[in-house]
Amino acid sequence: MDTAERLITSTQELLRERGYVGTSPKAIQQRAGAGQGSMYHHFTGKPDLARAALTRSAAELRALADQLLSADDTAVNRIEAYLRRERDVLAGCPIGRLAQDPDIIASPTLRAPLDETFAWLRGKLADVLTEGRERGELDLDPVTTAATIVAVLQGGYVLARAADSAEPFDQAVTGVLALLKGTA
Amino acid sequence: MDTAERLITSTQELLRERGYVGTSPKAIQQRAGAGQGSMYHHFTGKPDLARAALTRSAAELRALADQLLSADDTAVNRIEAYLRRERDVLAGCPIGRLAQDPDIIASPTLRAPLDETFAWLRGKLADVLTEGRERGELDLDPVTTAATIVAVLQGGYVLARAADSAEPFDQAVTGVLALLKGTA
Repeated sequence: MDTAERLITSTQELLRERGYVGTSPKAIQQRAGAGQGSMYHHFTGKPDLARAALTRSAAELRALADQLLSADDTAVNRIEAYLRRERDVLAGCPIGRLAQDPDIIASPTLRAPLDETFAWLRGKLADVLTEGRERGELDLDPVTTAATIVAVLQGGYVLARAADSAEPFDQAVTGVLALLKGTA
Repeated sequence: MDTAERLITSTQELLRERGYVGTSPKAIQQRAGAGQGSMYHHFTGKPDLARAALTRSAAELRALADQLLSADDTAVNRIEAYLRRERDVLAGCPIGRLAQDPDIIASPTLRAPLDETFAWLRGKLADVLTEGRERGELDLDPVTTAATIVAVLQGGYVLARAADSAEPFDQAVTGVLALLKGTA
């Protein structure tokens, strides 16, 4: 891996572990095994590097979701596969956890990858729910139900971290799937 | 307001605005208009003060939730009143937003108010859903459905902050209420 690449993956890890406010340029350089000069050769500073790391994390999240949600299956089965996919629940969502970071939210450039990722995910889920409705599998408002599903995931991470256990995440997912199936 | 009280409310505000990692003892002293000696007279340090602030925020959240969820009404109406109560959505949840803070989660003492608050809230919602089931208002598993409802709230805050708009919060709440009513 070249230095720029190591700097990006190290920043991805640190943002997930420590948040933006809690991540120093020095910590990034140490994790990446790169010097200060090398970091500023590739990136203009911490915001520029964070932007690259968030864009990368967003692309990874989107690729995984797209694969599972585009499968050839019923709407509810595709949503279940997505919600139940293997996750490091206690580490939190690499995108959603940054929404609590005041310096991310205050910066239009740094907030954009968060906003775009969730807008895309809600749109994708709404498409799946619309298809399910057209096929007579369920009858739900696609837009609000999609927001509910994404909120369950993001809130599930919050509850799991507060409890230091994946159990409340799993329960929240089980609950929303039962609600979706109950109206199927 | 006496100095100890001003220190607690200032810490509550700063934890919500900046998180634990982003809040310095100096910032607390400045917000409270208290000197360093005064702060260390009342509290042993930032963790002690954060513990007092989190315990206070948890008690406030619990009192509000208890009032709305204990009203004399159907289960779904009580849950709707709780979900739709006036909130400063873009500021995030004063308890849930701290679940992303690595130093809060790493400390059993500081994590406890988060864990206890969400455990209490899930239990309270499960009681409301159990009552609703006994009265024939709805037929849902109380424990997992309660986890889903709390997750929708917490995830709604995340989506709202990412979008810099309360709209996804409102949509997520509308979606879960439609699901609850659809199975009623």
